[in-house]
Amino acid sequence: MELLDALKWRYATKKYDPTKRVSEEMVKQLLEVAHLAPTSSGLQPFKVVVISNQAIKESLVPHSMNQQQIADCSHLLVFAAWDRYTAERIDGIFKKTTAERNLPETAMTEYGNRIKDLYLNQTAEENFVHTAKQTYIAFGMVLAAAAELKIDTTPMEGFDTAAYDKILNLNEQGLKSVTVVPLGYRDAGNDWLVNLKKVRHAKDDFIIEMK
Amino acid sequence: MELLDALKWRYATKKYDPTKRVSEEMVKQLLEVAHLAPTSSGLQPFKVVVISNQAIKESLVPHSMNQQQIADCSHLLVFAAWDRYTAERIDGIFKKTTAERNLPETAMTEYGNRIKDLYLNQTAEENFVHTAKQTYIAFGMVLAAAAELKIDTTPMEGFDTAAYDKILNLNEQGLKSVTVVPLGYRDAGNDWLVNLKKVRHAKDDFIIEMK
Repeated sequence: MELLDALKWRYATKKYDPTKRVSEEMVKQLLEVAHLAPTSSGLQPFKVVVISNQAIKESLVPHSMNQQQIADCSHLLVFAAWDRYTAERIDGIFKKTTAERNLPETAMTEYGNRIKDLYLNQTAEENFVHTAKQTYIAFGMVLAAAAELKIDTTPMEGFDTAAYDKILNLNEQGLKSVTVVPLGYRDAGNDWLVNLKKVRHAKDDFIIEMK
Repeated sequence: MELLDALKWRYATKKYDPTKRVSEEMVKQLLEVAHLAPTSSGLQPFKVVVISNQAIKESLVPHSMNQQQIADCSHLLVFAAWDRYTAERIDGIFKKTTAERNLPETAMTEYGNRIKDLYLNQTAEENFVHTAKQTYIAFGMVLAAAAELKIDTTPMEGFDTAAYDKILNLNEQGLKSVTVVPLGYRDAGNDWLVNLKKVRHAKDDFIIEMK
């Protein structure tokens, strides 16, 4: 499987070549992967911010533990999840679903009510833990897809989410940043990690078989 | 990109053909994808349980909202995250990393201490939110890989995690179940969802561009 080779090839890139750009066509494909990723109950409770603007990327470096990949990358993707579920948000996607599937308007009412009973009785913090988890599915798929396209990435959680939210005006949109991934091409000659062995737990410690 | 077509093809399978088995070779490839998935600080804080035992699968059905896919699938994967970080667990992977990279034993001590300062000062619940999130990256990659192999899947969060933990003896291993995914082949003639349109938010509502 092509993906296995791609995953062996990829690593958390520490140094990008700032002169190399990822083509808009490839960025579009990666966004389509994120868009197709499955989410719990199909609510798709997140958005992806795509930043190619150099000034904005540079303004985020001090809020990213000074990791220079944020500035040197070609495009920066920020995965931002809904700050909470609301009736409007839940109804919105189910209304779209019944319309696009040519179902009666009430076809998903009962299911929608169950979902609303569940999430609207939780705190905003509990909601956000759940919406954030959904973004990780898409995040994983985008990392896989980028590797297949031989695009380098650096998956990151280590950034100041509040600062990102402010700079990118996410809170006004009911969103909070979750993860970040620079896209670009490695500067292999200046990357300390590129030639180090990929280390994982022994497979016997990772897999539990019940035959 | 092959993956895009695969993601358009895939859907949350509602009915499996119980007579069709996924080959052991393909299951092995999917587990290798999960094994290669990146995690925060490389801690890889989870394991994957692979269940092909029919009796065990059937015993899980009542704890899975009676979803018959759990019994009818070929193999069931359960992603189970560390219940909490410990010094031993963190030291374990960094010790392995320095050894496999032929680095001095102390090469990751400072980094390890920072990680321990961060996680060991959190509650077990806070730790588990973080370890659980890491499993979703691998979960997403496995869903993508399965689709590339034309294996059907049903990503699930809707199950009784405590019952799963008990049946699979996960707590004794310091693990808690997070997500589940049946693998198999669709019974298209008896699956209500197979021909329904895949619905997502409009792309304009999903992508925020900053050029």
